[in-house]
Amino acid sequence: MSVPDVKIFPHATGEAAKTVEKHQDPQDLVFYSGWFCPYVQRTWVALEERGIPYQYAEVNPYKKEKHFLEINPKGLVPAIEYKGQALYESLLLCEFLEDAYPNHKPNLLPADPVERTYARIWIDFITKNIVPNFMRLVQAQTADKQAAAREDFTKALRTYAEKVKGPYFLGEEFSLVDVAIAPWIVREWIIQENRGYDRAAVGEAWKTYADTVAQRDSIRRTESEKQHFTDIYGRYLRDEAQSEAAKAIREGRPIP
Amino acid sequence: MSVPDVKIFPHATGEAAKTVEKHQDPQDLVFYSGWFCPYVQRTWVALEERGIPYQYAEVNPYKKEKHFLEINPKGLVPAIEYKGQALYESLLLCEFLEDAYPNHKPNLLPADPVERTYARIWIDFITKNIVPNFMRLVQAQTADKQAAAREDFTKALRTYAEKVKGPYFLGEEFSLVDVAIAPWIVREWIIQENRGYDRAAVGEAWKTYADTVAQRDSIRRTESEKQHFTDIYGRYLRDEAQSEAAKAIREGRPIP
Ligand SMILES: N[C@@H](CCC(=O)N[C@@H](CS)C(=O)NCC(=O)O)C(=O)O
Ligand SMILES: N[C@@H](CCC(=O)N[C@@H](CS)C(=O)NCC(=O)O)C(=O)O
Repeated sequence: MSVPDVKIFPHATGEAAKTVEKHQDPQDLVFYSGWFCPYVQRTWVALEERGIPYQYAEVNPYKKEKHFLEINPKGLVPAIEYKGQALYESLLLCEFLEDAYPNHKPNLLPADPVERTYARIWIDFITKNIVPNFMRLVQAQTADKQAAAREDFTKALRTYAEKVKGPYFLGEEFSLVDVAIAPWIVREWIIQENRGYDRAAVGEAWKTYADTVAQRDSIRRTESEKQHFTDIYGRYLRDEAQSEAAKAIREGRPIP
Repeated sequence: MSVPDVKIFPHATGEAAKTVEKHQDPQDLVFYSGWFCPYVQRTWVALEERGIPYQYAEVNPYKKEKHFLEINPKGLVPAIEYKGQALYESLLLCEFLEDAYPNHKPNLLPADPVERTYARIWIDFITKNIVPNFMRLVQAQTADKQAAAREDFTKALRTYAEKVKGPYFLGEEFSLVDVAIAPWIVREWIIQENRGYDRAAVGEAWKTYADTVAQRDSIRRTESEKQHFTDIYGRYLRDEAQSEAAKAIREGRPIP
């Protein structure tokens, strides 16, 4: 069986490469990353924001190597090994970092239970409405399907943007809500260049917010050079990608 | 537009009715419930397990009444009003109860960050693999589609059952993992009677676990009489249901 997704550029570049370089030494926490992965970027941003010591390990998750499947039986990045114990799922890893490193400031979830739940409600909104519609739009092959996905994506962004207190989602403090959405903000160029999407058309509130998040230091420090994404996203844009997420979107199943 | 789902039996019966009866007095926490709803049952079980004072309020979420939409703009039960602040999403409400009532024992999430994350990983597995496949199986109309959904559902249960430490998912302590799956355990009779599903066929480990969970006091105290479910599930079994979740399953979109 051909597994075309295995061929990806092998390592981080640009700003992200400099960050990788600084995180080579052994630590209690090993961060299994794929430089290109938006889910990875969430956990990576949380690590960077909070100054948590970690050792960076690049993995090609499409290869499903034995050692990696022992860390995450789902075979997906991001994953971590923390004092020998394996954990995965980008957003759960961000929550884990809050729980395991409470004294590394800034905390990315509010301490107040009501505000904390409010943050999680909007993270859940991103999971259910923003990410899947982005993927549908990228993978849609006909003009009709592209229009429908673009409409759903734009609508979801408007609903979200209405709730932005500014400059960040919850107000002055950068939080896990911003972390959860950021990787798709810095990947909007893909649908801008290929799917007739326009950030400005969503509305002024979205544009201002998206620009602010994209400029955040931790986001920039985890970004690789644009040209190396072309291969990977080319497969998504032609709907040839064989990743678990791509297959799920194609078949109308939940993203794993 | 006809909205057939509006016609449901109006209130809890059996053991659940007795529990409702005990929670009529005003409290800081108002619990907006639909007696028939599996998602509601999760939050309800958490409230009952932990002896948290709450006022029960029955809502028919299909009516989308103005006051209720102010509590939850998504128009879904469960929702709560806590000291005047509105929150929703069954699993996030369970987490909220952990955060807002830390001293009500038993806590349903482990205190250790690694174990807590492990619990959340399996709750996430339930969300992505068990619940949607249950719904697909109920709504599937052709023999082929039923067989495929039954297969996926059974496979997901086996993966889960392999990880049960016994008697509960995490071992001796009943936890949010058990809470998250319990409502579908006590609704298995629907697919047993209508979709050729067999609990025993999943395997001995699943059967033992499912029987244990179903007998838990908090689960029984939140259960209504079987016969009143017939109308509601009849619509799902004929794939006529107009709930947001039913439409999402039909269209291959994420469950809201
Ligand atoms: N829900 C997961 C999704 C992770 C994910 O899909 N990662 C992709 C890379 S972006 C992956 O590892 N894919 C390997 C594959 O699909 O085989 C999370 O949030 O961590
Ligand atoms: N993800 C939500 C789902 C809640 C849900 O779908 N509730 C159903 C009743 S079981 C509802 O309120 N449906 C109203 C509708 O679909 O219009 C949760 O976990 O709380």
